[in-house]
Amino acid sequence: MTDTQYILNTFLLLFSGALVFWMAAGFAMLESGLVRTKNTTAILTKNICLYSLSCIIFFLIGYQMMYGPIVNGDHSGLSDFFFQVVFVATTASIISGTIAERMKFWPFMAFVAVLSAIIYPLQGSWTWGGGFLSEMGFTDFAGSTIVHSVGGWAALAGAILLGPRYGRYKEDGTPNLIPPSNLPLATLGTFILWLGWFGFNGGSQLAMATREDVDAISAVFTNTNIAAATGVVTSAILTQIFYKKVDLTMVLNGALAGLVAITAGPDYPSMELAMLIGMVGATLSTLAIPMFDKLKIDDPVGALSVHLVAGIWGTL
Amino acid sequence: MTDTQYILNTFLLLFSGALVFWMAAGFAMLESGLVRTKNTTAILTKNICLYSLSCIIFFLIGYQMMYGPIVNGDHSGLSDFFFQVVFVATTASIISGTIAERMKFWPFMAFVAVLSAIIYPLQGSWTWGGGFLSEMGFTDFAGSTIVHSVGGWAALAGAILLGPRYGRYKEDGTPNLIPPSNLPLATLGTFILWLGWFGFNGGSQLAMATREDVDAISAVFTNTNIAAATGVVTSAILTQIFYKKVDLTMVLNGALAGLVAITAGPDYPSMELAMLIGMVGATLSTLAIPMFDKLKIDDPVGALSVHLVAGIWGTL
Amino acid sequence: MTDTQYILNTFLLLFSGALVFWMAAGFAMLESGLVRTKNTTAILTKNICLYSLSCIIFFLIGYQMMYGPIVNGDHSGLSDFFFQVVFVATTASIISGTIAERMKFWPFMAFVAVLSAIIYPLQGSWTWGGGFLSEMGFTDFAGSTIVHSVGGWAALAGAILLGPRYGRYKEDGTPNLIPPSNLPLATLGTFILWLGWFGFNGGSQLAMATREDVDAISAVFTNTNIAAATGVVTSAILTQIFYKKVDLTMVLNGALAGLVAITAGPDYPSMELAMLIGMVGATLSTLAIPMFDKLKIDDPVGALSVHLVAGIWGTL
Repeated sequence: MTDTQYILNTFLLLFSGALVFWMAAGFAMLESGLVRTKNTTAILTKNICLYSLSCIIFFLIGYQMMYGPIVNGDHSGLSDFFFQVVFVATTASIISGTIAERMKFWPFMAFVAVLSAIIYPLQGSWTWGGGFLSEMGFTDFAGSTIVHSVGGWAALAGAILLGPRYGRYKEDGTPNLIPPSNLPLATLGTFILWLGWFGFNGGSQLAMATREDVDAISAVFTNTNIAAATGVVTSAILTQIFYKKVDLTMVLNGALAGLVAITAGPDYPSMELAMLIGMVGATLSTLAIPMFDKLKIDDPVGALSVHLVAGIWGTL
Repeated sequence: MTDTQYILNTFLLLFSGALVFWMAAGFAMLESGLVRTKNTTAILTKNICLYSLSCIIFFLIGYQMMYGPIVNGDHSGLSDFFFQVVFVATTASIISGTIAERMKFWPFMAFVAVLSAIIYPLQGSWTWGGGFLSEMGFTDFAGSTIVHSVGGWAALAGAILLGPRYGRYKEDGTPNLIPPSNLPLATLGTFILWLGWFGFNGGSQLAMATREDVDAISAVFTNTNIAAATGVVTSAILTQIFYKKVDLTMVLNGALAGLVAITAGPDYPSMELAMLIGMVGATLSTLAIPMFDKLKIDDPVGALSVHLVAGIWGTL
Repeated sequence: MTDTQYILNTFLLLFSGALVFWMAAGFAMLESGLVRTKNTTAILTKNICLYSLSCIIFFLIGYQMMYGPIVNGDHSGLSDFFFQVVFVATTASIISGTIAERMKFWPFMAFVAVLSAIIYPLQGSWTWGGGFLSEMGFTDFAGSTIVHSVGGWAALAGAILLGPRYGRYKEDGTPNLIPPSNLPLATLGTFILWLGWFGFNGGSQLAMATREDVDAISAVFTNTNIAAATGVVTSAILTQIFYKKVDLTMVLNGALAGLVAITAGPDYPSMELAMLIGMVGATLSTLAIPMFDKLKIDDPVGALSVHLVAGIWGTL
């Protein structure tokens, strides 16, 4: 390990971590754009506070449980901490979207604290910490399971426990349309998340010390991008067929579903395969929305249909 | 070519490509902020879909026509693809702004497909693919002609074909003012584009393997920045003189005109010359707006006046 | 100094400078979100113009006064210029927030010109230019004093000179609540500033040529992040106690206060100490707001309470 390799590895983690930090802004914009105007301030407050609290708790408790003390290795130990801590907040953000408009501030913060101190580190250690899942041969390149499915399952539990928003379903069970308050913000949030995902997936290579590393990162960037792009086009076509009109909210969810689906293994497929993964991810997510509605599981910003469904598909 | 040089070159393209991707968000915010509220959703949908479709089509057809198969060279071949593909979307975005509020979704997507598959790769190959223009000694550092003028000419053709927006001109030919719907978003879009432009122009050096490379990239960054800054101040002064009031929309266009104008050759001028280039670009763009109005060419977000006029000036 | 070290140093400054540029967008969004709707356009215009003018004036006059001519050293001289010039705009942005809604455009621009040509370079040269303060042993890692306190003092002078906004205080001296116009934008602005701050503080290491450099930059990133996070949580708790409700505007100011406070020395403390610095910074800022109100010093976007108070604390 030369000095230059150590520097390059460390810089990759700092650069990528900054991009994943930026995803916190993306979730805040996406969710505040999709909820009703009266709940905008509440969800913005939750988003910036959940990011902050999860950083503090994961530093004080979670990181050590998952990886042990912060030490230098092939890169600065603190750069690794920085890259890991921003992932925890991503998991919490997924949940914040699903239970939007239905949970009070401090109980939600208490949940974030438990997630960051125990739930995330525990299940993460099974795979990334060298625990039993990794010994069984299970891999998860950038967190399709660890971040997105776990976030999705926790969100599903929350959505069932909390029930739907008041007035969301009619007496006969069909949903009332609750229009999003601010689509430019939601679109901005999606673009922010897409940009941040280059760091999320690209940084998960954890090194750029060799030609093989940067070749892999380049594949990750192109696959991540084309999976999201295919998700967008897939959702545009499907909503045109089903609803006779391209629906922007569903298109944004298509982008995110493509991103979540490719996250399990963005480094090895060809771009053609990445397109297929993104297409199926977006299709499943689009189909999941009426299914959740039939079960009266209320999913205000589409977080369940995106992260749970596409996360499971990506892992398969 | 050492391993470190290969890594640095590849990282430059990934870093710059991510910034150019970010420009897609910038165009979406700029255009949705400048059109009328009723058309906001339509233009957001167009912008995210055009980016996505152009990525897919350029991958399947365009890149190979322009450069041949994706192979590793002084950098990862996929990193080069990533950097190139985001440029195609930029060209399409310019057109989306000019014909805003006047073209249906699917015909526009069909046009984007043709642009990405044939028009852009064909004309691009004349210069960047080693074709007849490059043999005649024509150079275009970062795409002032290839991206901005071509986008501008196509947009001009579109604007003439589609005619002005309904109600845009009075019977006597003078324009009705159609106020922009959301100036904070338009300002945000301009800042996003400005940031992305550091990648657009800086990455066009295509290497950071030597001291000369990073010296050149540093010159590109400072020239790009000062050309945009001079464009802003120029437009502020001109609108104060002409309209007795600094006009924010024109100031934003001034920034973009400065950026477009410097893009033809951001690496060689002194900063003083870069200021001059930005100043003239912004002046021509400001003067072009009433000229287009006289010809009843409707340019809702100023894309024609910025990209066509400043692009031609930059190339000269 | 090897070629690789020169390249890495230069790239750090370009990368960090681009992030600090991005802070200009952050200030524009934060301030336009916090002022009244009728003043949105004015403050957006001011923000993009002050950035642009300060770049031009600092290039023509200020940089040479502060550092001498632009020459290559351990990094490209132009990359250093790029990194320095964006700091001047930050100083000007702080002032623009404090005097929001009360100063006309051109007088403010005249002030920005004087700031960029004389005030900033003069006081900056005392510390960073090797002047008398640095000879007395005074250091300021990333500009807690030079940028934030100086910006804060100038802003305080401006706020006293201009007086409060019309209608801000009742006859008995108690303040009228003037609600912010757009909290999603203000939140976005805070996230942008937080992201930009990684460049602001991280780039201030000025080199990434050795393991020690990137270890220091990693410490800067993690300390910057946790100080801001602690500022957020502190403000959430304090506003819950004082106002029986978590207040988003105060929470955003808490993030910024944490960032300002850590800026004086983000490289040396442990993360525990960084948390303490952020906590005290946010507490002082929160307490400062009613104090300024008692003195009838009107601080529309909280810039005084954040930059002056936290900047002084950070320097101690």
